[in-house]
Amino acid sequence: MFRKHYRCLVVLRMGHRIIRDQRVTTHVCLTARALGANRVVVTETHDSQLVETVRRVTEDFGGEFTVETGMPWRPTIHKWKQSGGKIVHLTAYGTPLRKVIAEIRRSQSSILVIVGSEKMPGEVFHLADWNVAVTNQPISEVSALGIFLDWFFKHRLCNDFQGGKIKIVPSVRGKRILTMK
Amino acid sequence: MFRKHYRCLVVLRMGHRIIRDQRVTTHVCLTARALGANRVVVTETHDSQLVETVRRVTEDFGGEFTVETGMPWRPTIHKWKQSGGKIVHLTAYGTPLRKVIAEIRRSQSSILVIVGSEKMPGEVFHLADWNVAVTNQPISEVSALGIFLDWFFKHRLCNDFQGGKIKIVPSVRGKRILTMK
Repeated sequence: MFRKHYRCLVVLRMGHRIIRDQRVTTHVCLTARALGANRVVVTETHDSQLVETVRRVTEDFGGEFTVETGMPWRPTIHKWKQSGGKIVHLTAYGTPLRKVIAEIRRSQSSILVIVGSEKMPGEVFHLADWNVAVTNQPISEVSALGIFLDWFFKHRLCNDFQGGKIKIVPSVRGKRILTMK
Repeated sequence: MFRKHYRCLVVLRMGHRIIRDQRVTTHVCLTARALGANRVVVTETHDSQLVETVRRVTEDFGGEFTVETGMPWRPTIHKWKQSGGKIVHLTAYGTPLRKVIAEIRRSQSSILVIVGSEKMPGEVFHLADWNVAVTNQPISEVSALGIFLDWFFKHRLCNDFQGGKIKIVPSVRGKRILTMK
């Protein structure tokens, strides 16, 4: 399993706007789920369609992943810090992943990973315990999140999701699934 | 540098539709560039705005990355194979990344990495030399591509892009850039 060496990993998705960001935020959520996060919190905007899309994926493919939308970002971050959790902010301007990943893992705290848009408030850089650059190049927050989580979980790429109705059976060619009873 | 142990790595983005896919395909392109691919080929639809967005990023941040759009997928794949290149198709249905990555690296061929939408033609599964699952779970093609490239390049996450007008200076807090003369 992913979650032996820490308590909880949650992704905070900043600056979601319905229509414009719906697909990218869905990619953020699927990436978070597949790579072992417990939950995604989407700030400001309620988006019931997004919640339902991800709920159905989890119902079908297993695990206990959830999405909440419409949360205000500042109280969410402050509450997290007050309860002893640490904050990782993914940004191309930050410290290279390679240099900080061991320290982040060692903290053994619950981790809130903040990903967002170009217009990240400056305050977030100061609230974060670590501003982390997957690379110091413009990149997608979706792939930055995927790569961060893969490194955080030591490249385990675990497929062990409990429950669900469907399991994909890895195959050399074509599509094979098992329908669970 | 990324490119010591192979000749060329190109990403083939299938099923791009203007408006609906513009942002996700931009994320694919930025991920491909930041993680060391040489080029992205986008099938079927011409999209000059996408090409221009990525051209400007490369002009600003360096490297020799390019995007072509409006290419027919079948001839592109066949031409690639005829010239001795190999095909990796990223799909949740494929063989786990961990099991095939060493074999893919060993081939020392030019690699075409195919990423796409839910409606990937069945033919692609047969044209591919490797159908590779980053995880056997629903995931984003953006993060799947990022993680695949990170593994392919042995987790080097290289920032060494030649030329460009701007360099990001990694920092613990805030945003620092160097403007090149």
